[in-house]
Amino acid sequence: MNGSEVIARLAADSRLGYSLRQEFYCDDDVFAADMERVIGRKWIVAGHVDRVRNKGDYFLFKIGDESLIIVRSDESTVNAFFNVCRHRGSLICTAPQGRVARFTCGYHAWSYGLDGALLAARLMPEDFSKPHNGLHRCHVRVFHGLIFINLSREPPVDFDAAFGDLAPYLDFHGVADARIAHAQSYPTTANWKLIVENFVECYHCAPAHPEFCSMHPPEALIAFGAGPSSGPAEAVEKYLPTVRAWEARAAGLGRPIGTVDDGPESSHLRLLLQRTIREGYDSETQNGRPAASLMGKRLGFDQGRMYLSFSPFTHLVATNDFAVLFLFTPRSTMSTDVDLYWLVDAKSSDVDVKRMIWGWDETTKQDKQITENNQAGILSTRYQPGRYSEHERRVVTFQQWYLAQFGLHLA
Amino acid sequence: MNGSEVIARLAADSRLGYSLRQEFYCDDDVFAADMERVIGRKWIVAGHVDRVRNKGDYFLFKIGDESLIIVRSDESTVNAFFNVCRHRGSLICTAPQGRVARFTCGYHAWSYGLDGALLAARLMPEDFSKPHNGLHRCHVRVFHGLIFINLSREPPVDFDAAFGDLAPYLDFHGVADARIAHAQSYPTTANWKLIVENFVECYHCAPAHPEFCSMHPPEALIAFGAGPSSGPAEAVEKYLPTVRAWEARAAGLGRPIGTVDDGPESSHLRLLLQRTIREGYDSETQNGRPAASLMGKRLGFDQGRMYLSFSPFTHLVATNDFAVLFLFTPRSTMSTDVDLYWLVDAKSSDVDVKRMIWGWDETTKQDKQITENNQAGILSTRYQPGRYSEHERRVVTFQQWYLAQFGLHLA
Amino acid sequence: MNGSEVIARLAADSRLGYSLRQEFYCDDDVFAADMERVIGRKWIVAGHVDRVRNKGDYFLFKIGDESLIIVRSDESTVNAFFNVCRHRGSLICTAPQGRVARFTCGYHAWSYGLDGALLAARLMPEDFSKPHNGLHRCHVRVFHGLIFINLSREPPVDFDAAFGDLAPYLDFHGVADARIAHAQSYPTTANWKLIVENFVECYHCAPAHPEFCSMHPPEALIAFGAGPSSGPAEAVEKYLPTVRAWEARAAGLGRPIGTVDDGPESSHLRLLLQRTIREGYDSETQNGRPAASLMGKRLGFDQGRMYLSFSPFTHLVATNDFAVLFLFTPRSTMSTDVDLYWLVDAKSSDVDVKRMIWGWDETTKQDKQITENNQAGILSTRYQPGRYSEHERRVVTFQQWYLAQFGLHLA
Repeated sequence: MNGSEVIARLAADSRLGYSLRQEFYCDDDVFAADMERVIGRKWIVAGHVDRVRNKGDYFLFKIGDESLIIVRSDESTVNAFFNVCRHRGSLICTAPQGRVARFTCGYHAWSYGLDGALLAARLMPEDFSKPHNGLHRCHVRVFHGLIFINLSREPPVDFDAAFGDLAPYLDFHGVADARIAHAQSYPTTANWKLIVENFVECYHCAPAHPEFCSMHPPEALIAFGAGPSSGPAEAVEKYLPTVRAWEARAAGLGRPIGTVDDGPESSHLRLLLQRTIREGYDSETQNGRPAASLMGKRLGFDQGRMYLSFSPFTHLVATNDFAVLFLFTPRSTMSTDVDLYWLVDAKSSDVDVKRMIWGWDETTKQDKQITENNQAGILSTRYQPGRYSEHERRVVTFQQWYLAQFGLHLA
Repeated sequence: MNGSEVIARLAADSRLGYSLRQEFYCDDDVFAADMERVIGRKWIVAGHVDRVRNKGDYFLFKIGDESLIIVRSDESTVNAFFNVCRHRGSLICTAPQGRVARFTCGYHAWSYGLDGALLAARLMPEDFSKPHNGLHRCHVRVFHGLIFINLSREPPVDFDAAFGDLAPYLDFHGVADARIAHAQSYPTTANWKLIVENFVECYHCAPAHPEFCSMHPPEALIAFGAGPSSGPAEAVEKYLPTVRAWEARAAGLGRPIGTVDDGPESSHLRLLLQRTIREGYDSETQNGRPAASLMGKRLGFDQGRMYLSFSPFTHLVATNDFAVLFLFTPRSTMSTDVDLYWLVDAKSSDVDVKRMIWGWDETTKQDKQITENNQAGILSTRYQPGRYSEHERRVVTFQQWYLAQFGLHLA
Repeated sequence: MNGSEVIARLAADSRLGYSLRQEFYCDDDVFAADMERVIGRKWIVAGHVDRVRNKGDYFLFKIGDESLIIVRSDESTVNAFFNVCRHRGSLICTAPQGRVARFTCGYHAWSYGLDGALLAARLMPEDFSKPHNGLHRCHVRVFHGLIFINLSREPPVDFDAAFGDLAPYLDFHGVADARIAHAQSYPTTANWKLIVENFVECYHCAPAHPEFCSMHPPEALIAFGAGPSSGPAEAVEKYLPTVRAWEARAAGLGRPIGTVDDGPESSHLRLLLQRTIREGYDSETQNGRPAASLMGKRLGFDQGRMYLSFSPFTHLVATNDFAVLFLFTPRSTMSTDVDLYWLVDAKSSDVDVKRMIWGWDETTKQDKQITENNQAGILSTRYQPGRYSEHERRVVTFQQWYLAQFGLHLA
C-alpha cells in the first residue's frame, strides 16, 4: 500500500470538523505522499530577492531531502537549480549563501554557468553531450520580489492565474523594493500540517500569545484572526462595521481594498485580510510606535495590517512600516523549518530591529513550543481526532484542501 | 505478519533454558507487541504517593510513547490521565511535576478539573458535549502508598485478587507512610527484557557487584539471590536452615513470615523472599550501620531484608531502615527508564543519604553498563541463545511468563 | 523482496559507464545485502600486528554491527573472535584495546582463553559442554604484518591463492616489520561504495587535493592515478616510457617490478602500481624530504611509490620512508569508518610525524567532505546516474565487481 492509498484509507475513517487521525502527523509513508502530491506541486516562496541582489548571488533552500540553488543569473533573471552535480550527484554548493561567477562542483570540478549550462567537464568520452548535462532546473518565478519555486516535474499550475490578482496589494506594500532587515530560524520538531494548522487559527492567540494580543483589538482576533471566514459568524458580523469604516479611511490613503478567501478546491488556499490594529497603534510593536519608515506607496499611517497567505507554506503579515515573511518548509515527517524575514523599505536606514521583531519573535518561539507539544501528545494511543471550535474554521478548510490534493473529500 | 505472529514464529524456534532469540531484544515489531500485550496490560508502579501529598500535586510518568499525569484530586483520590488534550491532542502538562488547581492546556486553554472533567472550552459548537470530552483515564490504584497504573483499554486484572495478599508485608514495612528520601534515574539503552533478566538473577552478583556482595552472606546470594526458587537446589537446601532460624527470630519481633513465588501462568510473576543480610549488619550500607530510623511497625533491628517483586516492572527491596523502589519502564525497543526511589520512615529526620544510596546506586550504575553491553553484543550475527546456569532459574521463569502473555509455551 | 532481489531489479535498470542508482547508496535493504554478500565474504584488513605485539594484546575491530576481538594468543598466533559471550550474548571486551591474560565477561564472569576456549562457567548444568561453548571464531590470517579477517560462515576464498603473489612487494617494503608511527580516524557519513569510488579514481585529485597533487607529476596522476588502467588510454601511452625508465632504475636498487590489475570477476579486485613521485622528491611530504628512515630492504631512495589495493576495503600506499594503510570499514547504510595507519621502519626513531602525515591527513579530510557531499546530493529526487569520464575507468570496474558479487552483469 503506497502513501496515497494509506491516506485514502485514513480519510475514509475521518470526520469533517475534527482534527486528523494520528498517522497524518507521524507516518513516514504519509509524509512521502505529502512530498509528492502536495509540497512537490505547489508554488512555495523560498526567499526574497534581497538575498540575490547582484549577479552571481545565490542562496540554498532546503525542502524535504532537496537542496535548491537560488541564483541571480543576470539583472532580470533569478534561476533555481537542484543542487546536484550531473556527474556523480554531489552537492555543488555547500555554503548556505555566497556570490559566484560560475558553479564549480568541489568534487571533480565540473562547472556550470549561472544559467545552469554545463561549461566544463574534463576528459569525458567523445559522445558525451554537454548540452544534455546542465543542472536540473526547478520552476521559479519572481513576483514582487518574492522568489517562488515549484518542485514539480510536470508543468505546474499557471503562476499568473494563481497569483496575479494579488499584484495591487504587493505593489502598495512595496514588497518588491523591500530589503531584509532581520532573519530568524525556528526549526520545529513537528509535522508541517501541525505548523500550518497552528498558523491558520487564532483560537490559541489569547492563551498563548500575550505579546501578540497586546497589539490587536480582541474582537478583531476572534472575528478575523485567521482570515475572512475564520471566526464565529456572530463575531464576524459584530466586528465587520469596524473593518468597513477602517477600509473607507484606508482607501482614502491609497490602500487597495479587498479580500481573498480561497476554498478547499483552490490550488493554493490563499487568504487576504486587511483590518485595523489596536487603537492608537501605528505599528505592530510593543508600544505601537513604528520601528521603520513607511513602506511602499503609503501616504501616511493608516493603523492597518494585512495578512496574506500565498499558500499554507508562505504567509506575509504587513503593518505600515514592516512586513514579516513566514516560510514553513517541510524537511521530514516530524521536522519543519520555520523561517521569518522582516522586510522594510529599502531606503529605511533607521530601523529599530529589536522593537520590530519583538512581537513575532516571541510569538513564533511560543508557536514552536506549542506545535512540538502538539506533536508529542498526538503520539499517544489515546489521541483521537478532536472537535474544532467555531474559531478554527480555517483549519477545517485547510484539511479539506489537503485531502483534495489526493482527490479525497470528507463527508 | 504482525508482532504477535512474529513472536509466535520466533518462539517455535526457541528452547527452554536458553536466552531468547535476537529479535526479542531488538525488533520494533516485537516491541510494539510487547507494549500491547504485556506492558499495556499489567499493573505497573508509577511512583509513591509522597510525590502527590497535597491536592493538585501531580507528576508525569512516561511509558512507551505515553505521557501520564498522576495527580492527587482530593485527600482520598489519586487519578491518572493520559496527558493528551481532547481538543487537538497536545500535551497538557509539560513540567515533569508541580501543583495545579486545574489542568489548562497551553495551546487553546481548554481546562480540566483534577478529576479530568472538561471545565472550559471556548467557542465550541452548540452540540459539543463537555461531559464526553474529559481526559482519558488510565486505570490507577494506590496500594500501601504505591501508585499502580494499568494502560489497558479493557478492564484489567482485578487488583485485589492480584496483590491483596501482600498487604501484611507492606503494612509491616510502613510503605504507605514512607517518604522519598532520594530519587535517581539511570536511563538505559537496552530492551526492557534485558533489564528484567538482569534483575531476576544473582549469578552476576559476584563478578559485577562488589559493593552489593559485601553486604550479604555469599551463600544467601547463591541460594536465594533472586527469590525462593532462583538458586541451585543444593544451595537452597543447604542455606534454608539459616533462613528458617532467622524467620523464627524475626517473627518474634513482629515480622510477617512467608514467601511468594509466582509461576509462568500467573498474572504478574510476583516474588517475595525475606532473609538475613550479612552477619553483624543492621542495614544494607557500607558498614552495616543504619542510615535512617527503623521503618514501619518494627520493634527493633532484625538483620533482615525483603525482596518483593510486584511484577517484572516493579520491585521493592526493604532493609530495616529504608526501602528501595525500582521502576523499570520501557520507552522504546532499545531504551528503558530505570528509576530508583529510596523510601524512609516519614518521620525520619536524620537520614544519611550518601550512606543509604551507596549500595544500590553503585549496583544500578553497574547494571546499566552490563545491560547496555548485553544489548550491543546481541546485535551480532553470531549471537545465539545461550544456556542458562542453575543460578538463573528465575530468568527462565520470566521468559516462560513473557511468552505466556502471547499464549505461547516453550517445549 | 529481499536485498539481493532489490539489487537485481536495480541493476536491470542500470547502465555501464554511469554512476549507480540512488538506492545503492542509501537503501537499508541494499546495505544488509552488501553485508551478507560482499563485506561479509571478503578478506578485509583489521589492523597491523604492531597493535598486538605481545601475548594477550588485543584490539576491537567494529564492522557493521559486529565487534571483533583481535588478539595475540602466542608468539606465532593472532586470533579473531566475535566479541559475544556464549552465555547471554554480552560484549566481553569493552575497552578498545588492552592486554589480558584471559577474556572474562563482565556480566557473569564466564572466562575464555586467548585461544577462545571457554575456561570457566560457574554453576552450569551437568550436561553443559564447555568445549562447545568457546568464542565464535572469525577467519583470520596474518600476512606480512597485516591482519586480515573474513566474516564468512562458510570457508572463505583461499587466502594464499588470493594474495600470495603480493609477497615480494610487501617483503621489499618491510611491512611485516613496521611499526605504527601514527593513527587517525575519519568517520564518514556516507555509504561505503561512495568512499571506495572516491578512492579508486584520481579525476578529483586536481580540483580537490592541492597538497596531494603538489607531490606528484600531473601526467602520472592522469595516466595512473588509480592504477594501471585507470586513466585515458592516450595519457597512459604517453606517460608509460617515464614509468618504464624509472622501473629499470628502481629494479637496480632491488625493488620488485610488476603490476596487478584485477578485473570484475576477481575475488578481491586487487591493484598494484608503482611509479615515480615528483621530480626531486624522495618522499610524499610537503618538501619532498623524507620523514623517517628508509623502509624495508631498500638500498637507497628511488623516488618511487607503490599503490597496492588488497580489496576495495584495504589499501596501502608506500613511499620510500613510510607507508599508509587505509581501512574503509562499513558500519551502516550511510556510515563508514575510515582509519589511516602510518607505518615506518620499526627501528626508525627519528620520525617527523607532522611532516609525514601532512599529505594524507589533509587529503583524507578533503575526501571525507567530498564523499559526505556526494551522499547528501544523491538523496535528491533529481539525482540520476551520471556518465563517468575516461579518468574514472576503475570506478566502473569496481561497480562491475560489486554487481558480480550478486551474480549480476551490466550490459
